[in-house]
Amino acid sequence: MKPEHKAEMKARRRNVALTVAYDGTAYHGFQRQSPPITAVQNVLEEKLAMVFGDSIELAASGRTDAGVHAYGQVVNFFTNGRIPIERVARAVNSLLPPDITVKEAWEAAGDFSARHSAKAKTYIYRIQQGETPNPLTARYAWYERRPLDTARMQAALHLLEGEHDFSAFRAAGGAPMSPIRTIYEAKVEECPGDILEFTLYGNGFLYHMVRNIIGTVANVGLGRISVERFGQILASLDRQQASATAPACGLYLYKVEY
Amino acid sequence: MKPEHKAEMKARRRNVALTVAYDGTAYHGFQRQSPPITAVQNVLEEKLAMVFGDSIELAASGRTDAGVHAYGQVVNFFTNGRIPIERVARAVNSLLPPDITVKEAWEAAGDFSARHSAKAKTYIYRIQQGETPNPLTARYAWYERRPLDTARMQAALHLLEGEHDFSAFRAAGGAPMSPIRTIYEAKVEECPGDILEFTLYGNGFLYHMVRNIIGTVANVGLGRISVERFGQILASLDRQQASATAPACGLYLYKVEY
Repeated sequence: MKPEHKAEMKARRRNVALTVAYDGTAYHGFQRQSPPITAVQNVLEEKLAMVFGDSIELAASGRTDAGVHAYGQVVNFFTNGRIPIERVARAVNSLLPPDITVKEAWEAAGDFSARHSAKAKTYIYRIQQGETPNPLTARYAWYERRPLDTARMQAALHLLEGEHDFSAFRAAGGAPMSPIRTIYEAKVEECPGDILEFTLYGNGFLYHMVRNIIGTVANVGLGRISVERFGQILASLDRQQASATAPACGLYLYKVEY
Repeated sequence: MKPEHKAEMKARRRNVALTVAYDGTAYHGFQRQSPPITAVQNVLEEKLAMVFGDSIELAASGRTDAGVHAYGQVVNFFTNGRIPIERVARAVNSLLPPDITVKEAWEAAGDFSARHSAKAKTYIYRIQQGETPNPLTARYAWYERRPLDTARMQAALHLLEGEHDFSAFRAAGGAPMSPIRTIYEAKVEECPGDILEFTLYGNGFLYHMVRNIIGTVANVGLGRISVERFGQILASLDRQQASATAPACGLYLYKVEY
């Protein structure tokens, strides 16, 4: 094939974007793994290939770790497949296992990238409180028997809002990128079923940042760390000052904005 | 041992009752099975035996089928074990897998039977509505894409209230017992997350009765069965007139009253 034909063909390829929800419990994270290890991406690419009649290599807004869930992961891929866009979700869902669902599919502009075009993300983290663990939320929330003081935690969360160097909450093994991020909103709410729901909305998050924040904020809620000390931890830029990473099961990638 | 000693020993045994919650997804129902098949009862009896230092044979308010969940199953058992009652829940929970929890333990009167003393039960059934299935409720709700008319379903549910012969909603293979039961309340509510929550509160339920009712009520909600026809089905006393049994995953034994 002549190069100009190749370029033309590439130009004609569709750029399809999907919003995907999943229960991450059974998967080794979102990012593709070598068999027999299975990630959400492996399953999605396999089923999308069947629906589009084309080999699919997708890009996501970001990876999620093993056990982390998503309401609104966004992915995109280029394809020559011809299935009408309005039939994509139903067709793929009929092949997917019950723990992964395509919520929406749309034709994206040629230069749209689920990863690079992302402007903001919202994560949710859930903690189940109470005298005994609830087996019906065990896959979906971190269980903490001891009472957590919501007002103290909210005060700590407010200190995160704005532009900061979040090195104190960054995983040791993360990729070398700027640790500066802006958090637009950080809040905690008491929900039915003894659930505390944390929402973190920002322009981007470092590796393990949400779970490291939650692990430390929980210690503020338990009275082990003062709100003032929490501010010092943020300012220290030192991961050693912050608490242990909160468990994956309580974390949800809720929404990605473009 | 002389018979009077045996009787005295039995008389001194404690009658311990527990409220138990579980995610039934991984189990072949509540009732004890022969290995390698595992039921909730197998797991509970094994862990209770470790905590009480005694072999435990428990009785439950009723069995639940494979995949059915419980917030408030009640069981009781006789034991010579000496662990203080206020330590039981925590001790057993430290041994139980995350999908089974003892919520409460108490010393019951010698003649208390979780099964025979039950005066009323409440079941909940959940249906997830919406354009696409939610993978985060797939284990816990029946998914139905097509819209269900809540007002029509509520009208049908009202017809169940009071004392009736529920033969039309009784499983073919059920034990030969009277099909007369009283339903005190039958309602449906719209809940967050596109969940329809059905509550059935009555003095007792026949085998598969709740799931057979929900399967038929869902067809009323879809417009396939009129409310009037639903009343005729109830009055027919004929299981063949009612719809297919609704899936187990949406059903919860919510509460047992004594």
